[in-house]
Amino acid sequence: MPDRPIYPTPQDAETAFYHALEHADLETMMSVWAEDEEIVCVFPGGIRLTGHAAIRAAWQRIFQRGPGLKVRLSAPTAIVTPLSAAHTVLQHVSLRNDESTHAQHVATNVFVRGALGWRLALHHVSLAPPDSAQDVPKVLH
Amino acid sequence: MPDRPIYPTPQDAETAFYHALEHADLETMMSVWAEDEEIVCVFPGGIRLTGHAAIRAAWQRIFQRGPGLKVRLSAPTAIVTPLSAAHTVLQHVSLRNDESTHAQHVATNVFVRGALGWRLALHHVSLAPPDSAQDVPKVLH
Repeated sequence: MPDRPIYPTPQDAETAFYHALEHADLETMMSVWAEDEEIVCVFPGGIRLTGHAAIRAAWQRIFQRGPGLKVRLSAPTAIVTPLSAAHTVLQHVSLRNDESTHAQHVATNVFVRGALGWRLALHHVSLAPPDSAQDVPKVLH
Repeated sequence: MPDRPIYPTPQDAETAFYHALEHADLETMMSVWAEDEEIVCVFPGGIRLTGHAAIRAAWQRIFQRGPGLKVRLSAPTAIVTPLSAAHTVLQHVSLRNDESTHAQHVATNVFVRGALGWRLALHHVSLAPPDSAQDVPKVLH
C-alpha cells in the first residue's frame, strides 16, 4: 500500500479537503477522494463530474489558474451512519490576494468509510445568498 | 405506529419524493423525509433549511404557489452503503401549464435506512447548465 494518508474520521477528511483546496494541493486533494468510479463532484456552475480521472483533471485546471483561495466555513450539519457521513457547511470563499472578491456557497460533502479510513465520495457545492436568512425558496429559478 | 408508508429501497423513497413534488402532495412529500432534526434541504437559490418544521413549511409555500411542476430525471448516480445511499440526478423541471418555462438542476439526494425503511435525509439541488457538457468548472462563481 502506498503512503496514502488515513483519515480516521469524516471531519479529518473534510479538514484535509479544505486545506488542499486553499493550498492548491492536488495530491492531497485527490487523496481525500474515495478510489471509486462512482464519486461525484458538482461545482458552483452546476457542472457535475463523475469518476476519479475527470474530477482530478478539473481540480488540476482550477489549481493551475490562480493565486489560491481562502475558505472560511460556518454552520456545519451532519447526518452520520456507521459507514457514511453526509455533511453540509457554508463556505465563505475569497481569492487569496483579493478578499474583496468573494462568494458564499453551500456545500454537501458525503464521506464513506473504507479500508483506509474515511474518504470523500460526493462534493456538491452551489451558490448561496449572502446572508443565511431562511427566505421563501425558489424551486424553479 | 401511524400509517406512514414504508419505502423498502432508496429508489422507492426517491420515486415518492418526485411524485409528491410533481403533485404538490405535502403529506407524501413529508412522509419521505426522515424524522430527524438533522435533515437538510438546499433549494436552487442556495437557501439551506434544516429540520422537519422548516422544510415542511417551505414545501407548503411552494406547493401553494402554483400549478405544479413536471420533473423529468436523467443520468442518475449512486453511492451505497448498508445504511445510506447518496444519489445524484439531473432534474429537468418545467411548469405543468407552461413547458416553455423550464430549468435544469442537479440534485443530490441522501437516504438513510431506519426502522421504517429508507427515508430522505438530505436534498441539495442547484442550477445546472442547459447541456451536461463537462466544461471547466468555476470554483468562485
